[in-house]
Amino acid sequence: MTDEHPHQLTLHEDPRSGNCYKIRLIAALLGTPLAIREYDIMRGETRSPEFLANVNANGRIPVLQIGDRFLPESNAACWYLAEGTALIPQDRFDRADMLRWMFFEQYNHEPNIATLRFWLAFVGEAHLSEQQRAMIPAKRMAGEDALALMDEHLATREWFVGGTVSLADIALYAYTHVAEAGCFRLRDRSNVCRWLDRVAALPGYVPMPQAED
Amino acid sequence: MTDEHPHQLTLHEDPRSGNCYKIRLIAALLGTPLAIREYDIMRGETRSPEFLANVNANGRIPVLQIGDRFLPESNAACWYLAEGTALIPQDRFDRADMLRWMFFEQYNHEPNIATLRFWLAFVGEAHLSEQQRAMIPAKRMAGEDALALMDEHLATREWFVGGTVSLADIALYAYTHVAEAGCFRLRDRSNVCRWLDRVAALPGYVPMPQAED
Repeated sequence: MTDEHPHQLTLHEDPRSGNCYKIRLIAALLGTPLAIREYDIMRGETRSPEFLANVNANGRIPVLQIGDRFLPESNAACWYLAEGTALIPQDRFDRADMLRWMFFEQYNHEPNIATLRFWLAFVGEAHLSEQQRAMIPAKRMAGEDALALMDEHLATREWFVGGTVSLADIALYAYTHVAEAGCFRLRDRSNVCRWLDRVAALPGYVPMPQAED
Repeated sequence: MTDEHPHQLTLHEDPRSGNCYKIRLIAALLGTPLAIREYDIMRGETRSPEFLANVNANGRIPVLQIGDRFLPESNAACWYLAEGTALIPQDRFDRADMLRWMFFEQYNHEPNIATLRFWLAFVGEAHLSEQQRAMIPAKRMAGEDALALMDEHLATREWFVGGTVSLADIALYAYTHVAEAGCFRLRDRSNVCRWLDRVAALPGYVPMPQAED
């Protein structure tokens, strides 16, 4: 694959982030070499003046560095890596439908399921602000709604779009498979559980790096 | 353009929604005919059993209907309509960078700027729940951050990606140009204001339908 990427690819990431793991997993599935530059988001390392000026003015990771250019937003980086591969469907409707699930992931899934994991498993409930604590029930309900929608969708199919794995599956897998760290119950979502197993069985699959330091 | 779309295209929408307007505007810029099916989100018409079963199990508009298939998520519908046109850059990095701004729009921009417009201009502050009122300051700050980032990005370029208008501009335009309805001040963001004028001057541009009933 390397000849398709004349520029060095560097992932600016925190290994505890599911958004970063998406990109690692896609690179592994495709056999694409990826250099890693780690940051500790808990120490504000993505808010330093250097990071904001040189890597991402939005102060967030992951950022995929392609030569001397920087690409923020995890799902945009997934798209960049996978263009021209079987992880993006050939069919026009399916390709847009894949993006549909990736936008769903960033709008309905990640702000609820990833945020509760971050708050409960990393920040710790005792350290949350009063306003954050007040938002937990709404995020819990919205996260359950997202999981229910996924479970219903997977009742009649093995993958989110078309007949094979696509970026939609990888984007949704990243925070779904660790949702229990945010106190979401997965075992009642049997279609989701079987799909998680399917993703983990893909040739080239790599697990998420250890969540603990 | 019609020969590129053998199936009838129908937009399921509420004309007050900026997410729906994105799709109308792209169809207008491309000269693509689009049938319209209107719903009133204030009356819960996108939560009816029929809508959930037949149009979008997620209970949201817009949905682009392509023949007998349904495509939710505004930015996925934008992608579907614009594939193969000049609204999607040819360059691989630019294409991913366009998606980067579209994911930014759905993650950092819409949940703050569109939500405050909806709460303040449509629901009315007096009818908000206590929890919604408590979220206003955080959404105000996050929305201002998004506008500041856009203004900084536009300081050195006319369009978000590459040298010409792309889906990134249309996606960000929809709720930015009506942000004042959510009590965001635009006139201090001079680069944003000039870019709004540029979008409004595009050949084929159509304004957002009247916000009032």
